[in-house]
Amino acid sequence: MDKSSVFHRSFANQCYALDNDRVRISITTGRDTDKVFITYGDPFSAGIMGGNEFWHGDITEMTDVRLLEHHKVWSVVIAPKHKRLRYYFILESGGERLYYLGNGFFTEDELSRKSFPEYFVMPWINPSDVFETPKWAEDTIWYQIFPERFCNGNDSISPPNRKKWRSERISRGGFYGGDLYGIIEKIPYLKDLGITGIYMTPVFKSSSDHKYNTENYLEIDPHFGDEETFIRLVELAHKNGIRIMIDAVFNHSGWDFPFWQDVYKNGESSKYRDWYMVNKFPITKHGDTRDNCFYSFAFIKGMPKLNTNNPEVVQYFTDICTKWVRDWKIDGIRFDVANEVSHTFLKKLRASLREINSELYLVGEIWHDSVQWLLGDEFDAVMNYPLTFGIKDFFLNKELNSEYLEYHINNKFTMYPEQANRVMLNLYDSHDTIRLITSINNNTDIFIQMLAVLFTLQGSPCIYYGTEIALEGDCDPDCRRCMPWDEIENGKYSQTIEAVKSLILLRKNEAATKSSDIRFIHSGSKRLVQYIKNSKDEKLLVALNCGDTSKIIDVDGKILFSNLYENGILLPDGVLICKCN
Amino acid sequence: MDKSSVFHRSFANQCYALDNDRVRISITTGRDTDKVFITYGDPFSAGIMGGNEFWHGDITEMTDVRLLEHHKVWSVVIAPKHKRLRYYFILESGGERLYYLGNGFFTEDELSRKSFPEYFVMPWINPSDVFETPKWAEDTIWYQIFPERFCNGNDSISPPNRKKWRSERISRGGFYGGDLYGIIEKIPYLKDLGITGIYMTPVFKSSSDHKYNTENYLEIDPHFGDEETFIRLVELAHKNGIRIMIDAVFNHSGWDFPFWQDVYKNGESSKYRDWYMVNKFPITKHGDTRDNCFYSFAFIKGMPKLNTNNPEVVQYFTDICTKWVRDWKIDGIRFDVANEVSHTFLKKLRASLREINSELYLVGEIWHDSVQWLLGDEFDAVMNYPLTFGIKDFFLNKELNSEYLEYHINNKFTMYPEQANRVMLNLYDSHDTIRLITSINNNTDIFIQMLAVLFTLQGSPCIYYGTEIALEGDCDPDCRRCMPWDEIENGKYSQTIEAVKSLILLRKNEAATKSSDIRFIHSGSKRLVQYIKNSKDEKLLVALNCGDTSKIIDVDGKILFSNLYENGILLPDGVLICKCN
Repeated sequence: MDKSSVFHRSFANQCYALDNDRVRISITTGRDTDKVFITYGDPFSAGIMGGNEFWHGDITEMTDVRLLEHHKVWSVVIAPKHKRLRYYFILESGGERLYYLGNGFFTEDELSRKSFPEYFVMPWINPSDVFETPKWAEDTIWYQIFPERFCNGNDSISPPNRKKWRSERISRGGFYGGDLYGIIEKIPYLKDLGITGIYMTPVFKSSSDHKYNTENYLEIDPHFGDEETFIRLVELAHKNGIRIMIDAVFNHSGWDFPFWQDVYKNGESSKYRDWYMVNKFPITKHGDTRDNCFYSFAFIKGMPKLNTNNPEVVQYFTDICTKWVRDWKIDGIRFDVANEVSHTFLKKLRASLREINSELYLVGEIWHDSVQWLLGDEFDAVMNYPLTFGIKDFFLNKELNSEYLEYHINNKFTMYPEQANRVMLNLYDSHDTIRLITSINNNTDIFIQMLAVLFTLQGSPCIYYGTEIALEGDCDPDCRRCMPWDEIENGKYSQTIEAVKSLILLRKNEAATKSSDIRFIHSGSKRLVQYIKNSKDEKLLVALNCGDTSKIIDVDGKILFSNLYENGILLPDGVLICKCN
Repeated sequence: MDKSSVFHRSFANQCYALDNDRVRISITTGRDTDKVFITYGDPFSAGIMGGNEFWHGDITEMTDVRLLEHHKVWSVVIAPKHKRLRYYFILESGGERLYYLGNGFFTEDELSRKSFPEYFVMPWINPSDVFETPKWAEDTIWYQIFPERFCNGNDSISPPNRKKWRSERISRGGFYGGDLYGIIEKIPYLKDLGITGIYMTPVFKSSSDHKYNTENYLEIDPHFGDEETFIRLVELAHKNGIRIMIDAVFNHSGWDFPFWQDVYKNGESSKYRDWYMVNKFPITKHGDTRDNCFYSFAFIKGMPKLNTNNPEVVQYFTDICTKWVRDWKIDGIRFDVANEVSHTFLKKLRASLREINSELYLVGEIWHDSVQWLLGDEFDAVMNYPLTFGIKDFFLNKELNSEYLEYHINNKFTMYPEQANRVMLNLYDSHDTIRLITSINNNTDIFIQMLAVLFTLQGSPCIYYGTEIALEGDCDPDCRRCMPWDEIENGKYSQTIEAVKSLILLRKNEAATKSSDIRFIHSGSKRLVQYIKNSKDEKLLVALNCGDTSKIIDVDGKILFSNLYENGILLPDGVLICKCN
């Protein structure tokens, strides 16, 4: 047995309460392991201190297995009779059978003579520690809007220097006049598309087009509208079954934020001195911040870093969010540069805000492994770039075989607790990245295949405005182009829109799309991806021909979505989604 | 390269802030790995979003390597220039060189062409998240006292039915009259022994001898003394350089606790109904609680489980602890059945109490892997049974070779953040276990060897009262015998006491005993254990002959402690501690 590849600790994604009654346990082993069993029972079933004798509990085979490149991940859900669990594993590999505990591997005979067996323990399911994520987020189709470029609904409030809509190649800092009125105007369009959630990048007063340099966290940018406009947008969205998520930029403020201005002007004597991370006074205004004179976002001088370790700062922004949630009725908050603010702040914030709205959706902008933020007391989800980047990788690189995609997806879905997986903000692009269609060299077949994957994976899928028309755009700032409303109305994009709409509809109608139960079928064909999504009542086959030759797929069920699929043959760059019996 | 054995995630014990400036990073690999390098730099050194190009940072070899049975653990400490770190690893094995990132292994060439490299990230060192454990606890020699059996200093308050001191074999529930006056009386004895911390099992009003079924959390048990006696004890201890740690039983109350009595009597209408976990009313008084009528500690009916998910309960016990810390000036709290109370409660408690005393020492009674409690916002340490049980295992089982001990110690010291390791409550026995000398079949040589290990390992060593005289005792209740003060005064145990004293003195005088830097020397001899402890200025050799034949040890330094060591030869069951040059 490949012992060195076995890994288990009773915490994080490997052992946690799923709800007030059930515990989910996973163990990672080598690819050579054939079977895994778990032995479990109450820690006190063998007396107060548990004793050191060889302890047998109930035994269950762990049948939920996911293949990774170098590992297998085995999982099981157990409802402990008395809220507590003691457990160990039995691993089988090539005829060998070993017992795996905290202090190593033992044969049955060795374990029966072992003086100090270290059983694994899940000590108690405490309801206040159980990770709860909002159910509605599982059912939501997000649409990310960069307000300055989505739609100009009220030109009377546009910046005086605004350019003509779509008049030139986007450059940093240009204004085109998009606003909240425009979003309000397009609610029927979004509803028709099937959207059930809007995530807006920042809407608060700020000198820039992107508004990530906030001047006032409670004043809607006057070029976007005002508080009344915002509340009207939220109310209208809600009436149309659409949730609203806004962007919270608490890692740093804008240069114009009054408290920073106070620090800048008054230096060490400012009463907001400890609201920031200034290492040297006086603050100079030129260059970047690589000299550590004060800390800022990404060395950008205009974005001085807030000190979220300071209880006053924590309280200030908790109060800001409280207003957004309680008075403005927003449904979700996306936290900008969420990995750099303090955990202390995020824990406090979650506890406070969930008191006001127990279904508030909290999402962190974190681009890397986020397990420490997804343990139940900080975020519900993060922007799941690591998941979708690996998927894009597969579609871009014809050298990679279908197992690559399988291992990648399995890896990313075994990293976090199930509660987070259910609501992870899965997205291929955003205001921070190249747009999907541009990233795949304008290949519209791959485009539909990738969206088919997005809408059939567990999580909370999010498309960036314009995805429904395969809007092009290179990295920031080019990914922030104006929406071509004229052309949309002329029907130029109706084919793409229809395809996206039908995938959204599929997502909404078929519960299996949201399920965690994904099983890859090994076809033996290098670039044919096939997986089954299972829900309680339904089995969905997703087949993607990512190779250059046709494949025959034997479909015994009802075809729900297909492109380029004819007479039982899945054509190159085809996608087929089918309800099986 | 054995890729399946490589494991790293940027959190918990594998990536954390050591202090406000430094990050400690570890990676686990297979035994086949020869060298590990880390490449690191600022995440924004390559532009705002970091780019996808092949990124090179600074490079450092990870030279701190610990051997485990199936792995090597490599560590490094880095002070990031701007508080942030992006990093990846370079692994070398048998001539192969691979780059290891969040999405797998790559050759240099593959990585240079990789579209979406998942670099590891430590996003920001936030001071409020940094794990701080009290420095004094590293320097403390703990002495655990079970007050009812330590010393009867005031017979006028003894229970009316108290038995004659040491009059019979200990049975459950018997009283002998030990009290706080007795502890006060023996402070000079403890000071002479070298003790610098007393941990007392519960002292609050309770009907039992062990007092783990609390009736009143603010009233000292009248058979032990009163508030004034307790405060006097704390003051006297402090005057003598001895810290005081008490036992907090918040997982459950006693049957006589007034709020439980209210629930018991008033049932569903009790206003304390949600203070407990009652599943079915009325509460009956017989049998254990395996029927889940209400939850209790270890199915013991007299110890109903408190609901530490209830904010009122959290507040109540936070206030209790506040009084202990603020008014009674205790230095540490040991939490009984700490794994079963809610994390929510523990986080709140730590934050509140450390506001009052920033150096308060918080220890959990947890017998298994405790990483989730040792991330900086709950406990400083746990009772480190898994460490010491494995050590005992080695000493008891002559079949195990010295590598077993090495791998075990390395394993337990690589499980937690360094800050926890520094102050882990390392102990061989307690009121809950068989006594050390009895557990090793009264072998006094092994006894001294094991104490030599305890006092030369990093952590906060704790001996159970009577260890200095090798007091015997089987499992609870026999491990709670009365101290034989007459015999101690007659000098019966002076030899053992002197040995223990000299080990304590060694611990205090030699900084290397406390260091994390432990290097095992492979002698090729099955049961000869040799390790070097390194501190900034000092090198300490610890040699233990755990086999049956003599060994020649070449000692080039100053011998600080030895038993059975003669003329360069370490006799069977000998121990040698030497200061090297």
